[in-house]
Amino acid sequence: MFVAINYIACKAHYKSRFEHLFATRAKAIDRMPGFIRMQVLRPTEEGHEYLIMSNWQNEASFKAWTKSKEFLEGHQRGFKDLKAAKHAGSEPPMTSTFRTYEVIAD
Amino acid sequence: MFVAINYIACKAHYKSRFEHLFATRAKAIDRMPGFIRMQVLRPTEEGHEYLIMSNWQNEASFKAWTKSKEFLEGHQRGFKDLKAAKHAGSEPPMTSTFRTYEVIAD
Repeated sequence: MFVAINYIACKAHYKSRFEHLFATRAKAIDRMPGFIRMQVLRPTEEGHEYLIMSNWQNEASFKAWTKSKEFLEGHQRGFKDLKAAKHAGSEPPMTSTFRTYEVIAD
Repeated sequence: MFVAINYIACKAHYKSRFEHLFATRAKAIDRMPGFIRMQVLRPTEEGHEYLIMSNWQNEASFKAWTKSKEFLEGHQRGFKDLKAAKHAGSEPPMTSTFRTYEVIAD
């Protein structure tokens, strides 16, 4: 099983908006071939990163998702917030580090 | 849902042993009340950390596990390796960073 994790450092003022985006997500990813599940993890300690984790049957399924129209649609609101900050000359409300994994035991 | 993640930086010479420990784990954790699942994630890129992740119904279930005799039994071989390295005056074969999370969307 293939796992993709986006580690998100979220500015304090953006946290409620960030959480709202996932609470009201379109769930387009759930219908992608090879999708197993996704979870958004909120750190229990201040200053740590959120994790957006998705589990896939294999890497190819994940890559197909990142190239799909559903991916763009699903990220539309977040991308818009990032663009708005850039346009206003503000720091981005969130920054991300992306890493991938193979499940070797469960 | 509560999630505990141990981020493990593993020395190159210890990786096969580390993976073996999980491939042959006792599965005592699977029988603990409140346990949902666990996964061990191997990074796809050299130099990144392994993730040992466990999902629980709540934090109390997780804490009960860390105080159980099953926890000590389950970690016996890894703890032994760490002690042996310390005794030999070597660097530890693995180091860990522990973080906890709440699932806010799935």
